[in-house]
Amino acid sequence: MIAGTSGTLAEVIGEMVAPDPKWRKQARAHLDNLTKPLGSLGRLEDIAARFVAIRKGNPDLPLRKAAYVFAADHGIVAERVSAYPKEVTQQMVLNFLEEGAAINVLARLHHAELTVVDVGVDADFGDLPGLLQRKVRPGTRNMLHEPAMTEDEMLGALQIGLELATGAQEKRQTLIAVGEMGIGNTTSASVITAVLTGQPPALVTGKGTGLGKSAHEHKIRIVDAVIKKHFGQKHFGEKHSAKDLRISEAQPFEVLRCVGGLEIAAMVGLILGAARYQIPVITDGFISTAAAAVADTIEPRVKEYLFAGHCSQEPGHRFLLEYLELDPILTLEMRLGEGTGAVLAMPIIESALRLYTDMATFASAGVSGASV
Amino acid sequence: MIAGTSGTLAEVIGEMVAPDPKWRKQARAHLDNLTKPLGSLGRLEDIAARFVAIRKGNPDLPLRKAAYVFAADHGIVAERVSAYPKEVTQQMVLNFLEEGAAINVLARLHHAELTVVDVGVDADFGDLPGLLQRKVRPGTRNMLHEPAMTEDEMLGALQIGLELATGAQEKRQTLIAVGEMGIGNTTSASVITAVLTGQPPALVTGKGTGLGKSAHEHKIRIVDAVIKKHFGQKHFGEKHSAKDLRISEAQPFEVLRCVGGLEIAAMVGLILGAARYQIPVITDGFISTAAAAVADTIEPRVKEYLFAGHCSQEPGHRFLLEYLELDPILTLEMRLGEGTGAVLAMPIIESALRLYTDMATFASAGVSGASV
Repeated sequence: MIAGTSGTLAEVIGEMVAPDPKWRKQARAHLDNLTKPLGSLGRLEDIAARFVAIRKGNPDLPLRKAAYVFAADHGIVAERVSAYPKEVTQQMVLNFLEEGAAINVLARLHHAELTVVDVGVDADFGDLPGLLQRKVRPGTRNMLHEPAMTEDEMLGALQIGLELATGAQEKRQTLIAVGEMGIGNTTSASVITAVLTGQPPALVTGKGTGLGKSAHEHKIRIVDAVIKKHFGQKHFGEKHSAKDLRISEAQPFEVLRCVGGLEIAAMVGLILGAARYQIPVITDGFISTAAAAVADTIEPRVKEYLFAGHCSQEPGHRFLLEYLELDPILTLEMRLGEGTGAVLAMPIIESALRLYTDMATFASAGVSGASV
Repeated sequence: MIAGTSGTLAEVIGEMVAPDPKWRKQARAHLDNLTKPLGSLGRLEDIAARFVAIRKGNPDLPLRKAAYVFAADHGIVAERVSAYPKEVTQQMVLNFLEEGAAINVLARLHHAELTVVDVGVDADFGDLPGLLQRKVRPGTRNMLHEPAMTEDEMLGALQIGLELATGAQEKRQTLIAVGEMGIGNTTSASVITAVLTGQPPALVTGKGTGLGKSAHEHKIRIVDAVIKKHFGQKHFGEKHSAKDLRISEAQPFEVLRCVGGLEIAAMVGLILGAARYQIPVITDGFISTAAAAVADTIEPRVKEYLFAGHCSQEPGHRFLLEYLELDPILTLEMRLGEGTGAVLAMPIIESALRLYTDMATFASAGVSGASV
């Protein structure tokens, strides 16, 4: 239904293909010839095989790495769901542009080209060099009382992500990290997680940037109330499961529109667009993975292009990773967002690819094989 | 007792000091001022705080990274405990020198200076450029029938490690990965693990480079028989625990001499020497961590300088990490050795340090603090 209203979105979804399984099989055979006991590089072998399959058998080194950070505000902060004031979204955007935030440090160290996008910060940045200004509106509406976005706003944010994916393809970027900044957005991610996975609010709602006990309990009640407001109780009966939701293609768009964020919608667009162009995407923490879960619910082939950078301390994150059937590369108790966990996984992915391309084979090195 | 016979070893142990706790406290205070929610970089903050404390408050960047790989053969291979023939040790040393092995690829990518040391390979390498030739003897004796080494051989191997630590200090290396190559050495590591941790052979003996079921069962029986031969049953009664062993300083040396490997002894020496010079060491897999556990049993202050690069698939590894009270940085189902898991953790450690040194503070960036 909604896909029909946006030619570009419908095209992206329609044109998406899964990698041909023959490439992964071929990559596995190559890995088995390298001078190491069979399978002894563990998950690095899985990563290399998946990546090489996406690149149609060509490991395509050197990598062109990129990170996209989407910033937006959230009407739900009026309900006191965050430990930090809303102004921090705008302040952190300025910090990104001055190169002082964690994502700046990691992107620089690991050679990822960083793009900071304002899709909905509640501030007028004027003429600010280095910021990609694509504000759809200054923050979402308060989803406790009304849908977070109109359909047009949601489609506008999705379109920004799609356009950035096209730009990534034009720049020949070969590995993309997605991240975000938005005070209040763990509340959106918690609602999305509860609705998509069927888990109760208490299990998927965390302390965000650092709530105390009573503020955390209040946040759980808000998440519960938001779900009741938009979806009633029907998603929390015994029969609710992720599979039920997949029945209707329109449903993930409805979830995104009612309880998403503008940065979440833009990440959904970037993830769908990158998968369309067969560019691997690394998810970061709870919020970007919520976007990936929405994208996957829209079109399950998207999963073939996703790598989970890390598992965060937000309790809902692991349910999203299970929903996506992704194993996180890192588990370092991080909960910062900004794309930090995704960029931190880049050297691991790059290591996997270098091992694939640069190791000697048993034959070339004259090493004996297993004897028992 | 044995420490008395080697002035240098006794000196190294005697001169070892733990980092002053004030440095870690100061590092924590700095981390809390950076533009991120408190503690949101998780284990990266622990890594940075420990490292900066070791460097006496000076993060000392750029890092000078190094990897040392020790190769040796094992008399126990006569008991058919490995999936690969003994010749693979020597073949892999040649592969290291031709830059074709996994450790070469990772050391190159992550800018670690690689040193390959022959401490006991059963082969005559003649004049082989690039190899540090310090052969103590061509492989250990078969520990099923006699001690793996004489006391002089063990001390000779320890001394090689101590000398390399002194060299590392002279080269101003600031982060050292330890690794090994030695067909048969998981059997040594399994025996060491059983003896130090009190776990039964069946729980600490894995499939090594890839044994089948019956060969694995045979290996467990060999580990059990080696323990009975050298230590009798006394270590496996209900009262056995790691703490009992710490009563006697000589005991870890006796364990090393009877059931260790020449490469394991050299790693013990390098780890002790590096700790003496306050150079952080990253352990790799099961075998290098067994060396770290022996070093820690000799002198518990050594633990302050250790980072666990990863947790391998060898089942005994986690018991050693628990014994050392170390959390592994990576868990990627690897089981290759060579120092690969240790070098792979280097970009994570480097990321932690860069975040520590390069991020803006709340005050410098004008970002608001938490409000609840």
